[in-house]
Amino acid sequence: MKRSEAVAEAAITLLAERGMRGLTHRAVDEAAGLPPGSTSNLARTRAALLELTLSRLTALEEQVFAGALVGEPPTVAELPDLLARVLQVQLHDRRRTLARYELALEATRRPELRRIYDRAGRRFRDPAVALLAAAGSADPARHGRRLVAYGEGIMFDAIAGAGTEPSLDEIREALRELLAGMLGGQQTSR
Amino acid sequence: MKRSEAVAEAAITLLAERGMRGLTHRAVDEAAGLPPGSTSNLARTRAALLELTLSRLTALEEQVFAGALVGEPPTVAELPDLLARVLQVQLHDRRRTLARYELALEATRRPELRRIYDRAGRRFRDPAVALLAAAGSADPARHGRRLVAYGEGIMFDAIAGAGTEPSLDEIREALRELLAGMLGGQQTSR
Repeated sequence: MKRSEAVAEAAITLLAERGMRGLTHRAVDEAAGLPPGSTSNLARTRAALLELTLSRLTALEEQVFAGALVGEPPTVAELPDLLARVLQVQLHDRRRTLARYELALEATRRPELRRIYDRAGRRFRDPAVALLAAAGSADPARHGRRLVAYGEGIMFDAIAGAGTEPSLDEIREALRELLAGMLGGQQTSR
Repeated sequence: MKRSEAVAEAAITLLAERGMRGLTHRAVDEAAGLPPGSTSNLARTRAALLELTLSRLTALEEQVFAGALVGEPPTVAELPDLLARVLQVQLHDRRRTLARYELALEATRRPELRRIYDRAGRRFRDPAVALLAAAGSADPARHGRRLVAYGEGIMFDAIAGAGTEPSLDEIREALRELLAGMLGGQQTSR
């Protein structure tokens, strides 16, 4: 692992375990097992450290999503299962998803972080729009955004809200229902 | 306003504007215009300050939700509009919703905060389950949870994610589609 990756991984762990208050250059050095000053050498400011961390995180999440889309384009009937599996990977990586939520909130206060977050968001939203278009949605741009929002809500509820973690079956059924409502109900069979 | 309410309001503002790192007893004294030490007198520890703040926040959000449910029980056709209006109030109160997200993440690390958050969550989820049951859902417990998760996702996406804020029409249409998918498509007319 490159040193920048080790730093980002340690920062992700600290964000998940201790929140924004627990993330300091010194804590990252310690958590990554690096000599004091290593994190500062790589990312001088707090802003730079946050940007490095978010960039690494979004690259990792993108790999999960891209991996799911390898191969033949899914049929409409296959969509709920495909999307449920992507969500479940992120749900099981609680550490990474919690860190992303911390960074999403921090991005409301830091324009440069917002820019990275938004760019990453488009890399999830654009494939969702394309899947909805291929599925015959009458308004794929809107439906794609809502599908991403639903996934986000299911994850947030399970990880940080008052919900319990849904099973793969439950996520699949939830997505099947949303898609049925969007597409008019005939196209996604049980 | 009681002093405890002034302290909680100032804490909510600090959480929204500066995040968990910006919330200190001293900053709350200053933001609330209170003499130094006032916040400490009221909530000695950081945990106590967080609990006071979350309790106030959930009481305020509950008022919004309860207000929307006053009067005759809604028909199925009225549900999307009713729920969209509740979501829009919370979307427009960006300060309060951001503070709630900060506290939701902190609650993953503090069991006492989690307990308050979960109790409040049930006060939203239980009416959602009742509304779905009245609307003829075959599985109101599951559908109620998913409806709350969808609302959460739409809000999180608009406020902290990469999305733009949806209009009332867009939220209503999104809820109408989800409910149509849940209820089999016949019961929610445009």
